Amino acid sequence: MKLYSFFNSSTSFRVRIALALKGLPYEYAAVNLRAGEQGAEEYRALSPAAIVPTLVDGEVKLTQSLAIIDYLDATYPAPRLVPQDPLERARVLEIAQTIACEIHPINNIRVLKYLSGPLKVSEADKSAWYAHWVEEGLGAVEQLLAARPRSSYCVGEAPTLADCCLVPQVANAQRMGCDLSRFERVMAVVEHCMAQPAFIAAAPSNQPDYVG
Amino acid sequence: MKLYSFFNSSTSFRVRIALALKGLPYEYAAVNLRAGEQGAEEYRALSPAAIVPTLVDGEVKLTQSLAIIDYLDATYPAPRLVPQDPLERARVLEIAQTIACEIHPINNIRVLKYLSGPLKVSEADKSAWYAHWVEEGLGAVEQLLAARPRSSYCVGEAPTLADCCLVPQVANAQRMGCDLSRFERVMAVVEHCMAQPAFIAAAPSNQPDYVG
Repeated sequence: MKLYSFFNSSTSFRVRIALALKGLPYEYAAVNLRAGEQGAEEYRALSPAAIVPTLVDGEVKLTQSLAIIDYLDATYPAPRLVPQDPLERARVLEIAQTIACEIHPINNIRVLKYLSGPLKVSEADKSAWYAHWVEEGLGAVEQLLAARPRSSYCVGEAPTLADCCLVPQVANAQRMGCDLSRFERVMAVVEHCMAQPAFIAAAPSNQPDYVG
Repeated sequence: MKLYSFFNSSTSFRVRIALALKGLPYEYAAVNLRAGEQGAEEYRALSPAAIVPTLVDGEVKLTQSLAIIDYLDATYPAPRLVPQDPLERARVLEIAQTIACEIHPINNIRVLKYLSGPLKVSEADKSAWYAHWVEEGLGAVEQLLAARPRSSYCVGEAPTLADCCLVPQVANAQRMGCDLSRFERVMAVVEHCMAQPAFIAAAPSNQPDYVG
């Protein structure tokens, strides 16, 4: 199995957590987003949208982190990251998608580049934009967590797809200097996750292409 | 079952298609996004992120269109909108998420409002922004479709979650005046879908809150 990844990409981080939780060995293929390597013709043949991550598993070539994790769950089901019970499953997907559809896409590197480039948005306004969507999105996640009994992970006592999405989003927001202290439930889950070996192994600073 | 929806919301449109394909009756609860009804305290209790759609099914209250459709698939499995075969499933999710994570979030109404409001982006620059993400995203979907044998729907000969996402995205882009003619495979699928009763029933102009 081969994962095309960039150390600082939070969507790559999601898949790295899933692979580590499942104990699956893989070859790490670094795609340097800062150098624009994702736009190379050879990589675009794997990823038409020119984004990381891409998973190659035998004949299977797959983009989109949530589709990749679903595929891993179907193919290598131990441990399951999306529960099979319809309601638990819905809770996990609701949190994962609040992050994957409401926060990350609006704040990813190519969108921020479009703001500074064609739209000539100032650095200060760009930071305010970033912080705004984090506030809105993690605020929603906080309420989703607070609506249920406290648990070690987002949903229950085992890690799920929701945690695979939450931890990288929080790491990203912290790197951008956001104050997340008011998201008490979110931060408690992240702290618990970041004490687990799989989450540590998947962290940006532990990747072969890490640049400090 | 009750669906909180806005006629022009493409994420609501996704769920309406799924409900229609499964033949599930539901109460339509209109949330007027133009009047800001999604921000009302009562609605925020259902949807912490203050977005549509929200599904209420007995005790279950659920936001996020893809999580809702997954829940409907688990609870009312005929017909399945996300196939069970791991590879078919991955193909469906890859296309659905390319739309749901790469196009829609960047172009939705609250993001466009932030561009015109705090960032004072001109109408022309806002249209160019919209068109840019549609071009990038539907370009990727076109390549995903073109990499496989031609089929009536996105994946195979039955509608799936991918079609539930594609049709509303294309409708949205057309409303914004985008020229989509170069996305030949995309447009062939959409044309096929829009000849089917479930897709017609779910269309914005057939909703009780429609305003022309």
